[in-house]
Amino acid sequence: MLKSKEGTEKGEVGFYLKALSLKSLEDVESIKEDVSNRFIVILRITPLANKDVGQLKEAVEELYQFITAIGGDIARLGEERIVLTPPGVKIWRGLV
Amino acid sequence: MLKSKEGTEKGEVGFYLKALSLKSLEDVESIKEDVSNRFIVILRITPLANKDVGQLKEAVEELYQFITAIGGDIARLGEERIVLTPPGVKIWRGLV
Repeated sequence: MLKSKEGTEKGEVGFYLKALSLKSLEDVESIKEDVSNRFIVILRITPLANKDVGQLKEAVEELYQFITAIGGDIARLGEERIVLTPPGVKIWRGLV
Repeated sequence: MLKSKEGTEKGEVGFYLKALSLKSLEDVESIKEDVSNRFIVILRITPLANKDVGQLKEAVEELYQFITAIGGDIARLGEERIVLTPPGVKIWRGLV
């Protein structure tokens, strides 16, 4: 992974943050891959929620188990989103 | 700082993520402090947007300059939020 002067001044490996929309169960694999690659993912779940609530539940459950297994973190953000973090990024529970 | 292959499991200082609401210009200082303390901040800007658009502009401008100065990153997230990151966390521009 490339390091930049701005992000990682002390040679520390950095993280990335991306915003995505969950449109189907098939998106789950690439989201897992992103989190494995040090991406914090802010996931808008409304597209799948509006289409198939059963699939949404399945997707969130699968992501929850994955995140728990790798030592990351997961939380709801408002009505429309969830946040997933890789190991090394903890979600502060005060207001999420 | 210790480095490890996995990222943070072996002594690397990690990051935190918190969700906050921007209610007034006075919140800006504590947000800067949070980012300085390795917090990724997901900031809901609607409370101040609904109250005083001029103050919102001022607050966002101040945060933008601060983030630029410390080498962090800042981006819009949907209609209601902005994301601010400390140095070491880059925002991926694909879909934000």
